[in-house]
Amino acid sequence: MKRTPLMLVAVIALVCVVAAQAPTSQPADEAAATIAGGKLPPGYRDWRLISVAREEGDLDDIRAILGNDVAIKAYRVGTRPFPDGTIIARLAWSYDSSAVNNKAFGRHQSFVAGHPKNGVQFMVKDSKKYASTGGWSYAHFDEGKPQRDVPTLQRCFDCHLAIKDDDYVFTRYTP
Amino acid sequence: MKRTPLMLVAVIALVCVVAAQAPTSQPADEAAATIAGGKLPPGYRDWRLISVAREEGDLDDIRAILGNDVAIKAYRVGTRPFPDGTIIARLAWSYDSSAVNNKAFGRHQSFVAGHPKNGVQFMVKDSKKYASTGGWSYAHFDEGKPQRDVPTLQRCFDCHLAIKDDDYVFTRYTP
Repeated sequence: MKRTPLMLVAVIALVCVVAAQAPTSQPADEAAATIAGGKLPPGYRDWRLISVAREEGDLDDIRAILGNDVAIKAYRVGTRPFPDGTIIARLAWSYDSSAVNNKAFGRHQSFVAGHPKNGVQFMVKDSKKYASTGGWSYAHFDEGKPQRDVPTLQRCFDCHLAIKDDDYVFTRYTP
Repeated sequence: MKRTPLMLVAVIALVCVVAAQAPTSQPADEAAATIAGGKLPPGYRDWRLISVAREEGDLDDIRAILGNDVAIKAYRVGTRPFPDGTIIARLAWSYDSSAVNNKAFGRHQSFVAGHPKNGVQFMVKDSKKYASTGGWSYAHFDEGKPQRDVPTLQRCFDCHLAIKDDDYVFTRYTP
């Protein structure tokens, strides 16, 4: 009779520990498989922020780079090459002048993210499976539909070769 | 004797349910109290992305607006006014031309977040406690040190009055 309450206390304590450490992204292998299967990984919009950027030119967007738990941990610890299971997402939106903000600031200075633009892109690390492209697969989705054209996706790798010395990843983590 | 295994199964099931629903931000009241006490709330850098923006002019930064769980839920559901416990964080960095990216793109177009700049700011919703400023408190931290000057913080509210009709919040959620 005495053992039961003790075990319950122990398991309840386990509840608290597990809940406190619960990951913020779905298991990496599941997300990677989803992307490879041509679908957006559930919850990617909830991944944590790596950094932000702006592309002028033909892209003309403002963007956020998000990472799954493996990515964020690797960035913060400084692990290179990125471990298998790292997934980095690039979201982007139109770069819109904000009339409301400009009026509040009293000058034309404020640009905000408008409508989603230039699709959603992912880099997925699997050093064995994607060895021929530096250990990463590149994926692009337009309104949830995957880009399937191999030459088009190959161009991602061709460009990322420029940053081969930093494991093919351009974006740096900004605290 | 038979009850014990059943109870253990039930509690272990509870572990799984709790872990799956674990929040991604610290309880709102704790974070709010921490900010009111003049400290950065732990884990704010892990809060989820609301949107991104760029301020030219004197600010000259690129920024990310993050929200705690209450904020993100309210944004996604469309709850207005924002519920008590909503906390919105504004992070910002220098707006740096990226030579590496420009070389890869073959043109001068790429701007990335550089060093943290213009401090970290928070809006904390408590409609009773902060009734005199539209239900929100405004906080600003420079390198972790809180801005304590009341007239300076009052200017936040004075400017946010411009968006009073959208519960004093300029930033819109971008999916």
